[in-house]
This record gives sequence, structure tokens and C-alpha cells, in this order.
Amino acid sequence: MTGCTRRRVLGGAAALAAFAAPSLVRAQRDAPRELRRLVAANRILANEGVVDAFGHVSVRDPRNAQRFWLSRSRSPALVELNDLMEFDLEGAAIDARGRTAYGERVIHAAIYAARSDVHSVVHNHAYGVLPFTITGQPLRPVVHTASVIGAVIPVWDIRTRFGATDMLVRSIEQGRDLAATLAGNTCVLMRGHGAAAVGASIERAVLTAIYLQVNANVLLQALPLGTPEALSAEEIARSAEAQFSPLALDRSWEYFCQRAGVDPG
Amino acid sequence: MTGCTRRRVLGGAAALAAFAAPSLVRAQRDAPRELRRLVAANRILANEGVVDAFGHVSVRDPRNAQRFWLSRSRSPALVELNDLMEFDLEGAAIDARGRTAYGERVIHAAIYAARSDVHSVVHNHAYGVLPFTITGQPLRPVVHTASVIGAVIPVWDIRTRFGATDMLVRSIEQGRDLAATLAGNTCVLMRGHGAAAVGASIERAVLTAIYLQVNANVLLQALPLGTPEALSAEEIARSAEAQFSPLALDRSWEYFCQRAGVDPG
Amino acid sequence: MTGCTRRRVLGGAAALAAFAAPSLVRAQRDAPRELRRLVAANRILANEGVVDAFGHVSVRDPRNAQRFWLSRSRSPALVELNDLMEFDLEGAAIDARGRTAYGERVIHAAIYAARSDVHSVVHNHAYGVLPFTITGQPLRPVVHTASVIGAVIPVWDIRTRFGATDMLVRSIEQGRDLAATLAGNTCVLMRGHGAAAVGASIERAVLTAIYLQVNANVLLQALPLGTPEALSAEEIARSAEAQFSPLALDRSWEYFCQRAGVDPG
Amino acid sequence: MTGCTRRRVLGGAAALAAFAAPSLVRAQRDAPRELRRLVAANRILANEGVVDAFGHVSVRDPRNAQRFWLSRSRSPALVELNDLMEFDLEGAAIDARGRTAYGERVIHAAIYAARSDVHSVVHNHAYGVLPFTITGQPLRPVVHTASVIGAVIPVWDIRTRFGATDMLVRSIEQGRDLAATLAGNTCVLMRGHGAAAVGASIERAVLTAIYLQVNANVLLQALPLGTPEALSAEEIARSAEAQFSPLALDRSWEYFCQRAGVDPG
Repeated sequence: MTGCTRRRVLGGAAALAAFAAPSLVRAQRDAPRELRRLVAANRILANEGVVDAFGHVSVRDPRNAQRFWLSRSRSPALVELNDLMEFDLEGAAIDARGRTAYGERVIHAAIYAARSDVHSVVHNHAYGVLPFTITGQPLRPVVHTASVIGAVIPVWDIRTRFGATDMLVRSIEQGRDLAATLAGNTCVLMRGHGAAAVGASIERAVLTAIYLQVNANVLLQALPLGTPEALSAEEIARSAEAQFSPLALDRSWEYFCQRAGVDPG
Repeated sequence: MTGCTRRRVLGGAAALAAFAAPSLVRAQRDAPRELRRLVAANRILANEGVVDAFGHVSVRDPRNAQRFWLSRSRSPALVELNDLMEFDLEGAAIDARGRTAYGERVIHAAIYAARSDVHSVVHNHAYGVLPFTITGQPLRPVVHTASVIGAVIPVWDIRTRFGATDMLVRSIEQGRDLAATLAGNTCVLMRGHGAAAVGASIERAVLTAIYLQVNANVLLQALPLGTPEALSAEEIARSAEAQFSPLALDRSWEYFCQRAGVDPG
Repeated sequence: MTGCTRRRVLGGAAALAAFAAPSLVRAQRDAPRELRRLVAANRILANEGVVDAFGHVSVRDPRNAQRFWLSRSRSPALVELNDLMEFDLEGAAIDARGRTAYGERVIHAAIYAARSDVHSVVHNHAYGVLPFTITGQPLRPVVHTASVIGAVIPVWDIRTRFGATDMLVRSIEQGRDLAATLAGNTCVLMRGHGAAAVGASIERAVLTAIYLQVNANVLLQALPLGTPEALSAEEIARSAEAQFSPLALDRSWEYFCQRAGVDPG
Repeated sequence: MTGCTRRRVLGGAAALAAFAAPSLVRAQRDAPRELRRLVAANRILANEGVVDAFGHVSVRDPRNAQRFWLSRSRSPALVELNDLMEFDLEGAAIDARGRTAYGERVIHAAIYAARSDVHSVVHNHAYGVLPFTITGQPLRPVVHTASVIGAVIPVWDIRTRFGATDMLVRSIEQGRDLAATLAGNTCVLMRGHGAAAVGASIERAVLTAIYLQVNANVLLQALPLGTPEALSAEEIARSAEAQFSPLALDRSWEYFCQRAGVDPG
């Protein structure tokens, strides 16, 4: 009763056993690295405060571009390997095995369907980002580590096409509308709700979501001081490339894993 | 001397022994789950910074609607099962066994008396919420996770009916006046003091108190940027229903328990 | 080398041994409780972020009103029983035993000399309080838990009487000037430097310093929202009495000790 | 798999073994203290949030003023003794042994070349400091503990001489341009990027970087309240001397080491 419950983590053998479930046999040979990194991604995003009780992160199946992996309905801080479920690009579970899926899995499905260059999607409600979804104040990169969020970050309002809702992205049509607003950009804000960040890999999507929040926090502090000078379009493009070079990407992935207490995968 | 004092938590057997005290026999059969969750609620609210040294949370007795449970006078971070005391709806202790009650237990008593739909009450002084009690700036839900706080949050000022006081709600009359201002809403602010949040269950009251603070913090950051767009009344109603669906409620309860290091009860 | 250094704390027996040093024999019989609480006070203030590398807290000797106890020059987070030194009301060490005293011990000496009602003094640089020392914005209690800071908090500027200095209170004359500005109040701010808070006991001085910071933080957030309504003078007086009642004082002392991992003493 | 990876720290013997690598024999006799302190400096800066995934700290070789030590490309939170590499004042590695160097090591090289009085350099992106790099709002010391940052803090913009870049200081020419803007000051801000802080010792550079952030945070909170009164030039000079006296410097070094869980070296 109120006994301390420490984070239980699947050891190597148990994890493989989990993978040995029939529906996972196909994925077992080459997918594990992606799935292990997906677990790490969940823990990192929770540890950095990018997600709280809510929010989720997915990865496209490296062997089947029409599928993606996402946790069952569970807070990212708690996600383990056998919570991961596979979905198609309409958001239907391939083999649910009784597990309940996130209601908003269609955000991921619709973005993967629209963007073949995207291999990972983060959806979150980072507190520092939320003010930019409700004030009309644009969120633009002002520091080089945040160049990866991109020069343009559109704001999507579910009400525009769907009227008064419970604010959640529940149907594939809503997901497609969000993906259309995201267009070719890296991040999209959602009015009174949160954001989505995409990347060509789990590491990129995770770092983009983290530095979207960092940039938002810097901007929140800078705006009362004067008019912040944003990076130029060329600086953003060049800096984003540098931030996603192995030199910078490996260093930051190792760092965020260590802080979250997870193996880099 | 200055030796480390680690959180001591009642184990299962000791907890049952505590329950075996004469006055608890009646409650022992079906109440324990509520009481275990009440201990968890105390720890969660402390861990999330919703309460500090002060603040408290109660639950209506599931077997006797004229009674409610609340800790003895102790900071929520430290509350254990045998700190819980039972009170009637005037705030009188049923069986104090020498324990000292919170001075402000009448907040709970008066709200339970006025609102048969309420089964749990949180009273707190969350720092982010306090600015809204002293500036006339209304606290309205601007993000969907906070829709549960409700469309209208009145502000109560003890001075209006009781003049200069020590700011504490000490008499049942003061409690009733607060409950009258709360009326049919979910939250009420108290000028220069704090807030009360109510719910149909412990989980709902706790999550409402947490997201009242989250919403306040988002609003504090958004206000210097422009005029924040609030959720519409219909969005609030629909979203609150979604946030209190088992899908969302179970996920967040598990999450906040894990962060606080307590068993979900 | 970069090996983890965990907080080493004097156990009971070793602590008594430390007290058995000749100069401490007199104090040993009735002072220990005050000294143990002084160690706890150091740790609490560090844990709550009221002090960082700098800042200090003292207690008047309960057996000799012309003496007070204060740590040797050491950050409060690290203070142990045998760091405590005794001083007279000019700031001279009674028995230094080779230990180096804080340069600003005269703050304590001068306040004890001027205020026979004061039995404990905290000097600190809490970050939330500092803006009020340099902007002319008055720091007034706006929430009831902070009523203990008092209705009037003067600001002292060392430059007024002593010209350009290193900003430190180094001479007993400077200490007396500060004490004169404090006058009969509970807190005094120091321009570009920090604050001092006094109390009739260690517990009161510590809680006053903590809630001075809480109130400053609430005010920093409230000021951009509108004109915060302060507590009235009568509300401050009545509420301060309630906050220092055993019901509230014991509860918060137990809480802050638990958070700091120290025995309540 | 997602198993907890605890900070692995080199024990004394293993550390010496690392030093026994051929290229380190010369340094082994008198350099170790500096190198141990350099590891501690990395951990302290990470623990205080002055650096995150990015940022670095170096020390000039005490036996050869034309050389300096800096970690291989790794986040400061993770740096161990055998990550340290030696460089010349053009930024070329003396004996890389397969290790990858930070891209921005030329910041350090150029400053050591330009400033014989500097023995340690910190480069970082502290979030509180960043708003001052993009708004034109000057960062001036307003509290005495931050006097060490100096009266004048210039802002360098890489675009002025190098046009659109990836914002990183990659060439020795860029490093020299930054060093020229730093001139004889202690800190320099970099537009949309971060800052560099220098010192006559590791301890001084580290404390300067920490209090640069503290001062920035105080100023961010003070600016909305009114016009903050800065310390006068004479107060800054006198106070900086006091803050770097052994009394203050040793106390704060011990404190920051304890917080970071590292041996003071």
C-alpha cells in the first residue's frame, strides 16, 4: 500500500521473449533496434518534460513503409517494449492482443501516409509551446540548436474544418487535415492542444521536439525584453544540417539517454 | 542527528492493523480502496507541487454520504493510512483518537453538504494559481487537458462577508459561504489564499487540481504574448468528458502515481 | 576521482563527541537542541533554494543572550554540527579553533544587539527576492502563508552611508546601519545583494525566509497580470499569528525537514 | 534494453592507468590536479544547467602555455578523465588517439592565443542568457555575486564578418574574431548561439559562467518590474575581488562539487 513502485524495465531475455509473440516474429530480425530506440524515445521525452501524462511518439516500420509502431495507451514515462503495437496508415491495429490503443494514433497514421520522408512522429503538449498555439505569436527559431524546428511552423485549428469538438484528433480525416497543414514543414502547432514534430529518424524527431520546447522557452523570456532577432532562412538551413550531423546528433542522443536512465539502444 | 529520514510507508499488514482500530471496523470491508487512494492522492499532489507544507485532500465515505475522510493535521507529502480521520458534515471528528485535525476541514464539510455530486475535495495554494486570486485576471481553460477545470471559476473573498480575518476558513459558516460561491462549478479561487477543486471521485479531483495549475502556468506565459484564445464552452464540455474517460483517466492516474512513487491503490 | 561524494552526516555519538570539545561543555546540556535545529535550518534553506553557495543562518545562544551560533565559512548545504562557532555581539569568535568565520557575521551580531526579541537571523540571496532589491517595486505580502514577512519590508542600500564598497557587510558599523533600517520589522532587503529575515525562533526565521521567496515569486508572476491586491494590515497581523501557531508551524517544520532529508531535531 | 545506465566514473587506479597512455606521461606529474578539476568542471556546469547536450570547458596546460585540454566530442555531463584531449593554439589535436574533437574547439584556441591571462574557457548556451543575445537588451551585473561577469559584456554576431553560416565557430579566423570582440572582458555573448566566459583558473571560469546565468535570470525577472539598478563600475571591481577571494571561491567550489556529486579535485 503506497509502497514504492520503482520503474520496472524489461531485461534483455524477457524483452526477446516479448518479441517472440507470434505477431512479432517477422519484425524480430531487423526491427528490434528501432523498437528499443522507440522505448528510449518515450522515456527521454518524459524525462525532458516534453510529454507528461499525455503525448506519444512513433516510428515507421523499417521493413514495411505502410506500418508504424506506437505504444498502447500508456504515459510515455512508463512505456516498455511489450507495450508497442503496430498500426497501418489508417490507424488500425495489426494485432492488438487486447491492448488499448491511443485515441489519437491517427495523427501518426495520416502524417506517415502524407510524408514518405518521415520515419518518426512526436505528438505532445509541452507547456512552453502551448502559449504559441493560442496567442497568434509565431514560434520561430532564434537559437542555433533549435534550427532543426524549421523556418515555418504553421498553426492548425481543429475548429476550422470540424467545428466544436473535444479537441482530440480522433478520425483519419482529422489526421489528414492536420497533415495537410503541416505540409512539408517539420513542426505544426495545434490550437489549445499542442504540437507535432516529425523527423527522418527517431533521434531527429525526438531532438526536434526537445528543442522546439527550448526555443519556445527562450522566446517566452526574450519577448518582454524587445524584438527577438530570428535566425535567417539560410542560417536555419545550414545550422539544422550541422545539428543533425553525426557529431552533434550522437552526442545529444547519448546525453538525453543518460539523463533519462536508458540505454542508448 | 540530521540523519537521513526516508519516507516511511505502511506495509500491507501494518496498514490493515491500523484499520483494525474499533472505529474503522465498519469501513474496513469496502472503504480501504478509497482510503488507499486518498493516501496516494496526498502524495501525488505533493509531488506535483500542487500542495506544499499546506493544503489537503478528502474523500466522501462511500458507505455513508454524511461522512468524509481527511488526514490529521500533517503535510500531504507525509500522510499515511493511519493519519486518516473521519468527519461529519459539520467538520466534527468521529473518533479523533488524540489526533489534531486541520483547522480548515470545514471547507470539505461544507462542500460535501452542499454538493451531493461531489465525492472528493482538494484545497491548495499552488503558486501558479495564486496570481489569479489577487489580480482580477480570470482563470479560464485555454488547453484541452485543462478543460476539466470548467468554463467558469469564481473568486471568493472571505472579507466580503466576514471582514478582516486570518484568511483561514475556520467556521462552518465560512465554509458554507465558500461553497455558495463555488455553486455548481468545479473550481473556486480564494483571494490571497488559494483554491478548491472538487470531483465525482478522488482521481477526478486530483487531476482537476493538477491541471488547474498547468492551465494557470500556461496562461501566465501566454498573457504577455497577446490575448490568449480560450476554449469555447462546447469545447470545454466535450473535452472534459474525453479527459475523464477511462482511456485518459486511467493513463494519467498511473502516471502520476509512478512519479510520486506510490502504488495506484 | 570524480567519485561520488555523498552527504556525510554526523551520527549521534560522533555528534556528542564533537560537543565534548572544551569550549562546548557549557552549552552541551541545554543548547544541543538549538544547535541540532541550526544544522537542520542550514540544510532546509539550501534544499528550498533560499540559499545557494552563499547565505547563512544563526541562532542566539539560549543561555547567554550576548552570544550567537553560526557555521564556519561553509555553504549551508554542507553544514554539520562541528562547523558551528560561537560569536559575541561584535562578531568576534569565542573559540575559533582554527576555523574561518563568514565575513558577514556582523549582520547577525548587529541585529541581535539591536533586537532583544530576535533569536534567529537568516541572510540570503534568494533569486526571486533579488528583483525587489533593484527596481523600487515594493515587496508586500499578497498571500496568507507569506503574512509572516510583515506589512513593511524596507530596502537598505550600503552605498547611502558607506559609498562604493564590495557590497558585503563587513564592519559592525555597517551591520548596525542595516539593523537600523530593519528597525522593528521582520525582513529587510539589501540593494543588489539580498535580504535578512529574523524571528523569535529558528523555525520562525526559516519559514519567514522561505515564504519571503514564495511571496516574491507569486508577485513576480502577478505583476504582469494587473495590480495585485495585498493583504490588509489587519489580515497580515492575524494571519501571521495563525501561521506561527503550533498547528501550522509544527506541520511545516516537519515537512521542510522531510524534504531536506534531515531529522526535525 | 532500456536498462538503467548509471554514471560510470573512473576510479583512482583506472584513472592513473588512463594517464599512463604514452602521450600523457609528461603531463602526469603535475597536470593531474588541473585535469581532475576539468572533469569536475564539466560535471558542475552540466548539473547547474549552464550546459546541456552542448557546451564545453577547457583549461590551459599549466606546463605549456601553448597547449590546452578539452574533452573529446561528448556532453559535459558524461565527460571522464580519458575523454580529455590536448590541443595547440590553432585547435589541432596533439594526440587524438582516434577520438573526435568538438567542432568549436577553436573558440578556446583563439582565446588562449589572444589572452595570456586566461587559463580556462567555458562555452555554453545557458537558456537564461540566450534572450540577451537576440534582443539588444544589455546584460549587466545587478547583484554582487555576479560582479565577476564584469562591467561590460559585448555581443558578437558571426554574420557581421562571415555572412550566413551554420552559426558555429568552425575556423580559427572565426575564433579570432570572437576573441577580438571579447577583448579584455570576462564574458562575450554570441547572437542566437550562446556565450563564452573566461577566467584565470578553472574555478573562476566555472563560477563566472554560473553567475552569468544567475544574473541573467534575475534580470529577466526584474525588467518587467521597472528599471533595474546595476552595480556601479567601482562596486563591480571591488565585489569581483571579494567573490574571488579564497574565502568565497573555496566555499562555492566545494558547494557546486557537492551538488554535482564530484570530488572537489
